[in-house]
Amino acid sequence: MSSKTSLLKKFYILYQIIGLILIYFVYYWIVQYRGGFSFTEPKIIFNWHPLLMTIAFLYLFANAILHYRTFPNNTKQKLKNQHALIHGCILILIVLAGFAAFVSHQYGKPQIPHLYSLHSWLGVITIIMFLSQLISGLWCFLYPGVAVQHRETLAPYHVFFGIGIFILAVATALLGFCEKIIFALSDKYKLLPAEAVLGNILGIVCVFYCILVVYMITKPEFKRQPKLEYETLLK
Amino acid sequence: MSSKTSLLKKFYILYQIIGLILIYFVYYWIVQYRGGFSFTEPKIIFNWHPLLMTIAFLYLFANAILHYRTFPNNTKQKLKNQHALIHGCILILIVLAGFAAFVSHQYGKPQIPHLYSLHSWLGVITIIMFLSQLISGLWCFLYPGVAVQHRETLAPYHVFFGIGIFILAVATALLGFCEKIIFALSDKYKLLPAEAVLGNILGIVCVFYCILVVYMITKPEFKRQPKLEYETLLK
Repeated sequence: MSSKTSLLKKFYILYQIIGLILIYFVYYWIVQYRGGFSFTEPKIIFNWHPLLMTIAFLYLFANAILHYRTFPNNTKQKLKNQHALIHGCILILIVLAGFAAFVSHQYGKPQIPHLYSLHSWLGVITIIMFLSQLISGLWCFLYPGVAVQHRETLAPYHVFFGIGIFILAVATALLGFCEKIIFALSDKYKLLPAEAVLGNILGIVCVFYCILVVYMITKPEFKRQPKLEYETLLK
Repeated sequence: MSSKTSLLKKFYILYQIIGLILIYFVYYWIVQYRGGFSFTEPKIIFNWHPLLMTIAFLYLFANAILHYRTFPNNTKQKLKNQHALIHGCILILIVLAGFAAFVSHQYGKPQIPHLYSLHSWLGVITIIMFLSQLISGLWCFLYPGVAVQHRETLAPYHVFFGIGIFILAVATALLGFCEKIIFALSDKYKLLPAEAVLGNILGIVCVFYCILVVYMITKPEFKRQPKLEYETLLK
């Protein structure tokens, strides 16, 4: 195993562990301090929102964009299909998470207006950009009619916007955690109870995870080398 | 003028305009809705914090990291000195901004505890990383004793962490805007009054500015070409 592959493997294990810790922290926060999960009680239905969004937009999205680097031995066509498949899962989770927020606002007592906060505005922008990227990606890179030279021209933009959308998603998540801590704890936040410490640590872990993922995705040494013997035949 | 230089110039004008709009929005928010500026009233002293931090960590920091690309005709030594000089200004503004937050918390009635929120935790991490980068940058790239090959090895890390710290600063600013809107408006935030719209737009402009700056700093075509005729002599 080359030193490059071994280093990539170490980074892979580290970002997987941090990603899973992130999901567990959100889950623990909700179960321990925010009343757990429910399908019937509007205030509790909301709790699906942070958990599903964390799984979709932070964990799966990072896995989708890093898939080419962490599984370089697959053929390009297979990697593209798997990249698209993970995005399909993300889409389903985002729809469910959005629905959870909508239902909890709509049927909460008192009713809460929709889409008023900075978190929600940035979230809407992130989702619109995600959908545009998904549709343009499917059309340019999976639809068979597009010429290879066009794909090669578009690929760096697809990668740049992918990383951009991931960073947007992290910023939106941070704002969401910030909002939720303030709304949930109100004046008690200042006294830094255990829930506030957990929420703050969650935000810091989230940022650290983002830096690690962006480092892995932009490090030229981790770039997958094209497998010419297969791909020229597959093109 | 080549098409690359012309495109860079357009981007330069755009990011300067957005940067100045950002500063103006923060200034307008404070003057219009948050009681303006003061050197004596703790609650108002705080208002220096968002303004100075926006000037330092969002506007000047972006200018410092983009300086090499937007003024490519200067010699490398001059660019390095100017890059360091802008960082000196940033340092002074950050100290003042931090002092404003400290004084307003310490002498506010009621007194507000220090460093309890996610914004402040992330802010402290950003400042520690900024100072580490500043000291290591001065030592590696300005101190004359370091060998050229060491500088060349360290330069990509310096660039990566520079961009990383800028993104951290933007994330911290977003959390600050989010916190401030919620604390200032409390229950009225949900009704989306003019101040809330301004605060949300400010956050979105901030994100757009960040994406533009990161795009400019990572686009290989905008990279400054070394001026061999001078720099080999200057090394």
